[in-house]
Amino acid sequence: MLKVIVPEEKNGLLPIDQLSDISMINQELARTLNDSQGIIAEMCNHLLHAGGKRIRPLLALYSGMIFSEQAKPRLIQAAIAVELVHMASLVHDDVIDESNLRRNRPSVNKLWGNQAAVLGGDYLFAKAFSVLAENHLVRNLNLTVQAIQEMCHGEIIQAEARFNLQQNLDDYYRRIAKKTAVLLQCACKCGAIVAGATEPQIEQIGAYGLNLGFAFQIVDDILDFSGDSTVMGKPKHEDLTQGNLTLPALLLIEHPQFGAWFKELIIHRQFSAEELRQIDKILAETGLIQTSFEIALSYIERAKQILDSFPDTRNRDFLVGMADQLKTRTQ
Amino acid sequence: MLKVIVPEEKNGLLPIDQLSDISMINQELARTLNDSQGIIAEMCNHLLHAGGKRIRPLLALYSGMIFSEQAKPRLIQAAIAVELVHMASLVHDDVIDESNLRRNRPSVNKLWGNQAAVLGGDYLFAKAFSVLAENHLVRNLNLTVQAIQEMCHGEIIQAEARFNLQQNLDDYYRRIAKKTAVLLQCACKCGAIVAGATEPQIEQIGAYGLNLGFAFQIVDDILDFSGDSTVMGKPKHEDLTQGNLTLPALLLIEHPQFGAWFKELIIHRQFSAEELRQIDKILAETGLIQTSFEIALSYIERAKQILDSFPDTRNRDFLVGMADQLKTRTQ
Repeated sequence: MLKVIVPEEKNGLLPIDQLSDISMINQELARTLNDSQGIIAEMCNHLLHAGGKRIRPLLALYSGMIFSEQAKPRLIQAAIAVELVHMASLVHDDVIDESNLRRNRPSVNKLWGNQAAVLGGDYLFAKAFSVLAENHLVRNLNLTVQAIQEMCHGEIIQAEARFNLQQNLDDYYRRIAKKTAVLLQCACKCGAIVAGATEPQIEQIGAYGLNLGFAFQIVDDILDFSGDSTVMGKPKHEDLTQGNLTLPALLLIEHPQFGAWFKELIIHRQFSAEELRQIDKILAETGLIQTSFEIALSYIERAKQILDSFPDTRNRDFLVGMADQLKTRTQ
Repeated sequence: MLKVIVPEEKNGLLPIDQLSDISMINQELARTLNDSQGIIAEMCNHLLHAGGKRIRPLLALYSGMIFSEQAKPRLIQAAIAVELVHMASLVHDDVIDESNLRRNRPSVNKLWGNQAAVLGGDYLFAKAFSVLAENHLVRNLNLTVQAIQEMCHGEIIQAEARFNLQQNLDDYYRRIAKKTAVLLQCACKCGAIVAGATEPQIEQIGAYGLNLGFAFQIVDDILDFSGDSTVMGKPKHEDLTQGNLTLPALLLIEHPQFGAWFKELIIHRQFSAEELRQIDKILAETGLIQTSFEIALSYIERAKQILDSFPDTRNRDFLVGMADQLKTRTQ
């Protein structure tokens, strides 16, 4: 029997309605995963209690509710499905990266081995499709499949680009679109579809999600250099040391004064603790962290602009708030 | 661009209609996987050319065609979906078992690493659901999700039972039901559903698939001791050395003369080449391979009996033939 989770204290700054929506999403996730058995049930319990900001299901929920509040029960199902896909992909990513830590807690592969993690991820994917199929959300299902394909492709092109100095910012944006933004876009579109939005409305809310996704990933990539590893629940510089060259790194490569030195480090594929400290310092002092953050801000603004065309309702406010929350994101 | 595969020579003993159906299934698989990119496209090409007996899609096809020959185009789609699930699970199994060889060729994880194998498996699962969703095969989708959940659970209880001497034949049958037979049952039911069969007919053809699945796995487990590794395309004694105690092993444990000796070997979890040769010899001389084979035969007969209640058509003959083929299965 899976336990029901209440939102964690760290979410204390969220509006009360959003907290209660997160609580409802958590309850529904627990109910959906209640038929799991053995190690997979333990894994699900672990994942449910590991928290998570539930950004994707909230996006699906509010993206639907701006079109129809009555659709809420079905929207919850659409929201759960997106979160299950996200959870599955995190579990599989940790297998691939051989990560030991996820959100300040041991990863599934660390606790129960690769077998439980690979099969447990499969179970979560299957559950996502089961929720969609049982609720006859066929179009959501098609979108979700496309998003999963993009995510797989994104992860693979990211791996292929490791330590590659020949890449440019376009490559980076293409990668984060596939890896992250497409699933947020999918979440928003799925919500709108369930709520009976028109095709242009579906596309528009999808564009909001896509822009939000870009901002979300860029902030994530900034935190890998400038974040607090205790708050983030994972070590810093994970991307860089694995050769994943993100926005701040790609900007630093182009820097007239420090670019050559940084490229040398990348070519040697090794970074001492002192060098990592230096990189952080240089990124701060040259203003490249600030530049990266401004790029993230521009995506946040673009996302909010798209929302302007929708009626000024509480649910639209939630979506605006979710974009704004990225500005102060620390984990 | 994926290449189209023609059935291989080793299938030369199959009826000509079945060969052309396999060819059609292969073409449709290639077409379905044609949107894959990069490493995943390479992986798909590799998997498509690795052959495979296409038992599951043929089961789906003929299980539907006994009810409606007109349903063939949609049956092909149902058939493809089942095979994609099977392919995905094989790719993930090889990651879990760290296998280097599959069907006489290097495994996906061996060739492209765990990342491509985990994500490639996810892609294949997603593709299966996409085929089902696009063809509005919602009930098949639900059945497939259940089958995947059972398969995941089966793999996990198999891992938990490794080298465990406290297990009995019931545990073994429960395991192989989940691990293998449920997907064959699912294939048959999916075909019947698409062809518009009645509920009792769907259950009945499912029972045929389940019995066939038991026979299929038992023969597989026999071959792990008595097969020819060159013909099978994988080393012998893989199950035993990994601690997976299958039907012949569980019978040997109970043997009055050799049981105690065999249990000792299992407790020590190591088997020399000489000991493995001895085990094969004892299994043959005590008649335990024969006993195992007779149990498989009883499932084959039960599967065929179930078919007796259906009209005597060419498609029923194919299903009878697929059961009979297991008797002479060597790979």
